[in-house]
Amino acid sequence: MEDKLKKLCKLIRYDILTSTTEAGSGHPTTSLSAVELMTTLFFGGFFKADLDHPKGVQSFINDRVIFSKGHASPLIYALYHVAGAISPKELMTLRKIDSDLEGHPTFRFKYADVATGSLGQGLSAGVGMALGIRLTIENRMWKVGVEDRKSKVEKNQSSNLNHLPLSSTVYPQSSVPNIFVLLGDSEMAEGQVWEAVQIASHYKLNNLIAIADINRLGQSTETMLGWDLKTYKMRFEAFGWRTIVVDDGHDLKKIFNAYVETQNFASLQKPTIILAHTIKGKGVSFLENKEGWHGKPVPKDMLQSALKELGKVDFKVRGKILPPKIKEIDRNLLKLIEIKQKATTNFNEFQRISTNFKKGDLIATRLAYGDALLALGDVDEKIVALDGEMSNSTYSEKFAKKFPSRYFEMFIAEQNMITTALGLSKMGFIPFLSTFAAFLTRGFDQIRMAQYSAPNLKIVGSHCGVSIGPDGPSQMGLEDISMFRSILNSTILYPSDAVSAFKLTQIMAKNDGLFYLRTNRKTTPVIYGEKEEFHIGGSKVHKVNIVSKVLKVKTLIIAAGVTLHEALKAQKELAKSGIEVVVLDVYSVKPIDQVTINQLTHNCHNIIVVEDHYPAGGIGEEVLAVLSKSEARNTKYETNSKRFENLNLKNSKIVSNFDIRISNFVHLCVRHLPRSGSPDELLHYEEIDAEAIINVVERFIAQK
Amino acid sequence: MEDKLKKLCKLIRYDILTSTTEAGSGHPTTSLSAVELMTTLFFGGFFKADLDHPKGVQSFINDRVIFSKGHASPLIYALYHVAGAISPKELMTLRKIDSDLEGHPTFRFKYADVATGSLGQGLSAGVGMALGIRLTIENRMWKVGVEDRKSKVEKNQSSNLNHLPLSSTVYPQSSVPNIFVLLGDSEMAEGQVWEAVQIASHYKLNNLIAIADINRLGQSTETMLGWDLKTYKMRFEAFGWRTIVVDDGHDLKKIFNAYVETQNFASLQKPTIILAHTIKGKGVSFLENKEGWHGKPVPKDMLQSALKELGKVDFKVRGKILPPKIKEIDRNLLKLIEIKQKATTNFNEFQRISTNFKKGDLIATRLAYGDALLALGDVDEKIVALDGEMSNSTYSEKFAKKFPSRYFEMFIAEQNMITTALGLSKMGFIPFLSTFAAFLTRGFDQIRMAQYSAPNLKIVGSHCGVSIGPDGPSQMGLEDISMFRSILNSTILYPSDAVSAFKLTQIMAKNDGLFYLRTNRKTTPVIYGEKEEFHIGGSKVHKVNIVSKVLKVKTLIIAAGVTLHEALKAQKELAKSGIEVVVLDVYSVKPIDQVTINQLTHNCHNIIVVEDHYPAGGIGEEVLAVLSKSEARNTKYETNSKRFENLNLKNSKIVSNFDIRISNFVHLCVRHLPRSGSPDELLHYEEIDAEAIINVVERFIAQK
Repeated sequence: MEDKLKKLCKLIRYDILTSTTEAGSGHPTTSLSAVELMTTLFFGGFFKADLDHPKGVQSFINDRVIFSKGHASPLIYALYHVAGAISPKELMTLRKIDSDLEGHPTFRFKYADVATGSLGQGLSAGVGMALGIRLTIENRMWKVGVEDRKSKVEKNQSSNLNHLPLSSTVYPQSSVPNIFVLLGDSEMAEGQVWEAVQIASHYKLNNLIAIADINRLGQSTETMLGWDLKTYKMRFEAFGWRTIVVDDGHDLKKIFNAYVETQNFASLQKPTIILAHTIKGKGVSFLENKEGWHGKPVPKDMLQSALKELGKVDFKVRGKILPPKIKEIDRNLLKLIEIKQKATTNFNEFQRISTNFKKGDLIATRLAYGDALLALGDVDEKIVALDGEMSNSTYSEKFAKKFPSRYFEMFIAEQNMITTALGLSKMGFIPFLSTFAAFLTRGFDQIRMAQYSAPNLKIVGSHCGVSIGPDGPSQMGLEDISMFRSILNSTILYPSDAVSAFKLTQIMAKNDGLFYLRTNRKTTPVIYGEKEEFHIGGSKVHKVNIVSKVLKVKTLIIAAGVTLHEALKAQKELAKSGIEVVVLDVYSVKPIDQVTINQLTHNCHNIIVVEDHYPAGGIGEEVLAVLSKSEARNTKYETNSKRFENLNLKNSKIVSNFDIRISNFVHLCVRHLPRSGSPDELLHYEEIDAEAIINVVERFIAQK
Repeated sequence: MEDKLKKLCKLIRYDILTSTTEAGSGHPTTSLSAVELMTTLFFGGFFKADLDHPKGVQSFINDRVIFSKGHASPLIYALYHVAGAISPKELMTLRKIDSDLEGHPTFRFKYADVATGSLGQGLSAGVGMALGIRLTIENRMWKVGVEDRKSKVEKNQSSNLNHLPLSSTVYPQSSVPNIFVLLGDSEMAEGQVWEAVQIASHYKLNNLIAIADINRLGQSTETMLGWDLKTYKMRFEAFGWRTIVVDDGHDLKKIFNAYVETQNFASLQKPTIILAHTIKGKGVSFLENKEGWHGKPVPKDMLQSALKELGKVDFKVRGKILPPKIKEIDRNLLKLIEIKQKATTNFNEFQRISTNFKKGDLIATRLAYGDALLALGDVDEKIVALDGEMSNSTYSEKFAKKFPSRYFEMFIAEQNMITTALGLSKMGFIPFLSTFAAFLTRGFDQIRMAQYSAPNLKIVGSHCGVSIGPDGPSQMGLEDISMFRSILNSTILYPSDAVSAFKLTQIMAKNDGLFYLRTNRKTTPVIYGEKEEFHIGGSKVHKVNIVSKVLKVKTLIIAAGVTLHEALKAQKELAKSGIEVVVLDVYSVKPIDQVTINQLTHNCHNIIVVEDHYPAGGIGEEVLAVLSKSEARNTKYETNSKRFENLNLKNSKIVSNFDIRISNFVHLCVRHLPRSGSPDELLHYEEIDAEAIINVVERFIAQK
């Protein structure tokens, strides 16, 4: 075994060096330090996976591996090369425009569940996957023991639902798939790593195994702890992890023994980390433990001397990744899991659930979201919820109380919450995650990275805008629409009443992708009937009948959420003076209803957009993009397509006339730095209330 | 003393309960748990500050206090009330629209250095202030011992400049101001807290003292650790802190002794944390240790029974915050510090420094930024630099090598870096902080919060756009312009060549506020001469002379950075066929040069915006806002104004005609999810290269 592994390590080093030199860029030294660690994991019989079904539903029983240090991609590709899954020819396409072997792995690489490359995110994805595995196993228990579980919940009156035991006794422990995460030492400076570390120990994720490649050197300098493995050990143990120290991370025997040791953990109910002392650039003397080589390939003229140091390479040697031990596990259970995870939501069943909201009732959209999530929970077991310790404000608590095993309290750690949800989605679950809209900015990098993992995430931000009132600006989501719009293939929904909030939540569950739902703290009256239909890219036109009209040229007011109600108030008020305005509810903020906007501007040459958001990047600018027709191509959704059809796509539809019918465009939004105050005072202060709208319309009339 | 403190605690409890009930919202229970901890700090003789000079330059010798748990604002205001700094009448204006006593403190509260309310940020601000204090003291050493220091640097050949000893032996240790940070236990789940914890111990910040109010309860549930102080202690000690455990955080004697103990730390060179077991809602039996009361005031009809539990309150008792011990310290030094911190940069001196870039030279803007920062370092000692362990990519390493004591390696922990820089700015320094543009998204919440602290931050993001090439999408800043535009009073600069990068860096140093500079990885030719002038809100028009023109209606191409060069290439190529286009370099992305854009559209009715950024929220939409005239009011900068003049500001200038001269508007930007590839291949793939521009112009012509 050791001889074989040695040979494999040699070939992998050869691959790393040659592929990066060929690419002319990349991170060979970072890859070289983890060769022994990962070769032993892959080919020493520890990592078990069916390479024919690397991702998706069929892969539940596979172990998973996440390269959190995504810049070690030359090592990843080399491992799959020596496993026979990548041809030598493909290996040499590293970083080329037509290759799926990118500089940092994305969803395009078929063996990567999540994209990595922004450091410190991999462990959170691992937490999500480990929770997903546990829950999948638990689902059976849920079905067979639902009454038993219910009574447990009832007896346990504590609100600490997250503390309920998540035992997995039904499933043989030795067959529970493991999640392996390779961590770099530099990235352990990221707070998100410690968010994941604390949550993993809180949830007792004993099938989560991290491997820390402690090579001492970052990109530009030494890490804070260097090779101080003792301190790393202390920190992880203080955070409730089991640690295994490998004082030489290039000694195959020691590494092998460490992996053997990880297998004796079932009773400990702790996550495990292997802390390995390694050498950056290991194997090539002029790279070893040297600064100045990070992210640099060996120049062509030095490659031969580097390769020479490897000694004789056996180009024919191949390693075998063992398949999962299916025999040991309950085949019927596996079948059940497959069926369940493949099943699509029975929406007919969902639609029978009455929303039970009456027109005129004052209900916050966040509350209706909570109701919808609760209702969805009954329909589809794949729906799970996560919250950043705000569940009694976002109303995810309704779901949490009824489905405690499918609710994950993520505490005040938004970054980890987002990537954990991504991990759960990669195990076939449909995660809804919520906190205040303002605090989602904490996880922008995690949301940004998720787009490169073909995500299925439903993100819900409550307490948007100045209309939250007295808590003040720190709690107001005022950049959130801009943030989610900037993500290329996102969908943004922004309901104005309980009915639309309920139905848009259902739409999110139905559709794959990265979704953002913006909800309000403030109550608003129900304006839509139970039968009203909503869809992605839709809108609702609100008109009033006026007999004697003052104006020929009408005004179109575009709004959503709280400001929709201000627009409707203004409409009613103006109608009294015979002034007609059309109000458009753009509840689908992205994609926005271009067709209806363009139709309405035939008759409405004055446009007002009014939104509870800062000026840049919000609904106002999106409407401008529609009016300029520059938005046309942006409605095509590409995230989940495997490959882009055409590298030389022509600019076919992007040239078009600006809409010259428009004579006035006014954008009412949050233009003063907000402060504490009552919701109505603040809407007035920011000039996004009915009065401000009426003022503008009156100015339009005076203009004539 | 104990009796006096007891009386003060009673009055403070009274204030907390009455002010929140009067406001109808707020967080009394969170405030009540820390009453004894903070009353002892303020009035037990430990916190020393001159309340007449609470912020700014004169306040260097003040201790500072940061309420990281910003929702405990009723406690903050009550403390200053009993200190005589807030009138009883003002106290009762809590959360009202015309009050500076906001729901969570912002820059408007005169005793708050930084806004808090998004949890887990206060300790990082404290790290910045503690570093600022040390550096201020060191500055003297720097002046008197510059030669000595230089030789130290030369002898120490290690690149670990951050490991240089930052001794403060010149300054009497007992007079070094302390930074106190009140931490909530819930917020310790935030990764940023652990980023700050590790950096504080790395930099041996022995004047940083955290006080943890461990009341067990979060907003909706119990924290992960509850009252497990032993584990908190273990974690902080593993991270290199000294811990002092107070097993009853309401026992004044025990708290007093803990603060006395903090004073014996000089030799330890460690930050200190007081871990106190407290009770949420302490003092009112029906609130104590109860769930369901977070963020809720006592209802009016229950207030009397709550107040009754406090017993007899002495409304006349007042506490005294001791002034700093000026006598003990070197008065001349203090004078020197004042003069230095008040001094403005000598820009004449700076402008004498030749940029030394020749037209046509291929230089990356990130490199020119590094040169400019280096040059600035000589001119103004207040300039400091921070980097997220990317200094050899962002080129802040040039500054780091020459001014090691003014460079702070922040390692891969962007959130902490941003708030630490904010803290440094609050001690009078001018912080420049840099990392990859993509990774700045990691700190969006911190940037968002900074805007409520009247910030002076110069944020630099390198490696923007697809033009970085083979590293792939995870490393590409494609949402950064959108992110910084969405911050209300930000300024965004985006140079296209070395000269503009150099000069725009200088402009950032000169001007106060929140700045973002976007730099490129890719080299670009120098196109501007040494004498060229740049300014905020400016632009550069590039024209070519063409004798026989094909078109009467010209095209305006708006670009910046890498795409400016593509536009210039297209311009040159089109000129050969007699097609005239005007190219506008909008190096000042925000505020953008509205005047010039509006002038140019008199003759250019076709507009192309081309940018290396995703479609939403970037330059394209900003230009649309200009064309629609809806942007008019957004150029007014308000951040640093103390109060807004007028709550009923009328919509004076916002109604105006849409620019109906425009016949075509095309927005070329990153519309396909990017991948690895060469920079030129990717510019082509995304259709933002010269060829794509030429295609569009040719289509304009064919249209006629």
